[in-house]
Amino acid sequence: MDLKALVRSIPDFPKPGILFRDITPLIGDADGFEALVNEMAQPLFDRDVDLVVGPEARGFIFGSALASMLHAGFVPARKPGKLPYETIGCTYGLEYGSDELQIHVDAIKPGQRVAIVDDLLATGGTALACAKLVEKAGGVVTGFVFAIELCDLNGRETLAGYPVETILKY
Amino acid sequence: MDLKALVRSIPDFPKPGILFRDITPLIGDADGFEALVNEMAQPLFDRDVDLVVGPEARGFIFGSALASMLHAGFVPARKPGKLPYETIGCTYGLEYGSDELQIHVDAIKPGQRVAIVDDLLATGGTALACAKLVEKAGGVVTGFVFAIELCDLNGRETLAGYPVETILKY
Repeated sequence: MDLKALVRSIPDFPKPGILFRDITPLIGDADGFEALVNEMAQPLFDRDVDLVVGPEARGFIFGSALASMLHAGFVPARKPGKLPYETIGCTYGLEYGSDELQIHVDAIKPGQRVAIVDDLLATGGTALACAKLVEKAGGVVTGFVFAIELCDLNGRETLAGYPVETILKY
Repeated sequence: MDLKALVRSIPDFPKPGILFRDITPLIGDADGFEALVNEMAQPLFDRDVDLVVGPEARGFIFGSALASMLHAGFVPARKPGKLPYETIGCTYGLEYGSDELQIHVDAIKPGQRVAIVDDLLATGGTALACAKLVEKAGGVVTGFVFAIELCDLNGRETLAGYPVETILKY
């Protein structure tokens, strides 16, 4: 199945000069969504994954579907103020300024094996912040899976040392 | 399995006087998450669901897992400014002021059968906005499924006329 045929390219979103890869037509197609999620799950089946972490908000879409397929728990990594209980956080750099992701302090038990899943590997900053959160909690990062990789942005360098799988490369 | 035992009650979140039902320990438990998602999917298996709509952001967690199980597509309903392509929107009232949810203008084809899935049925305002979006796009709402229902808030009255299923009632 040609999954890329279901990805829509939108110029100048969210700002001029950016060609946005819109995955909504793909996930809105039952066959496409199933094929994509199956491909994303394949590298994880033999890694004894206890938990999947997905960052807000598109990471929830793929993270929870994969957690469900893998019989793992799902841990949302959220922006500050969203989680109701005590949290641990990790700040990461953006083009201008910085942002923070948080998980609940008890979301990951020491030694649990964790896969990190998101829609897009761009610079890798968000993904690396998730890995630091997992390790701060005592978990073991078993690797990353992304639906899309923007190869020119060198996210794999940011995530060097971890297994990284991507399905649709641009 | 006692799913309620995995829900954490947090007083005064997000504001004083609210007892927040924190579902993250339940979805972070592999057996609990599987049992919950299975229970949520049961009423949908015989409804010929083409698409699942889930509102940002916790609706993505349950919506995409259910879409994957049902072999349906997933449509995220998002806050303004998040979707890259042309959208249709629905404004809904909050306690103070109003908010808006949007879907892509081509996310739902006329006649497609749509289930609306979210973590929580409170007053039902967000869910009703999703139903209006689906119907504006020409889709057929086959019903709603929620993980949690706050019965005192009468969300079922807001959604009168639609099938409504909830798993954990408070």
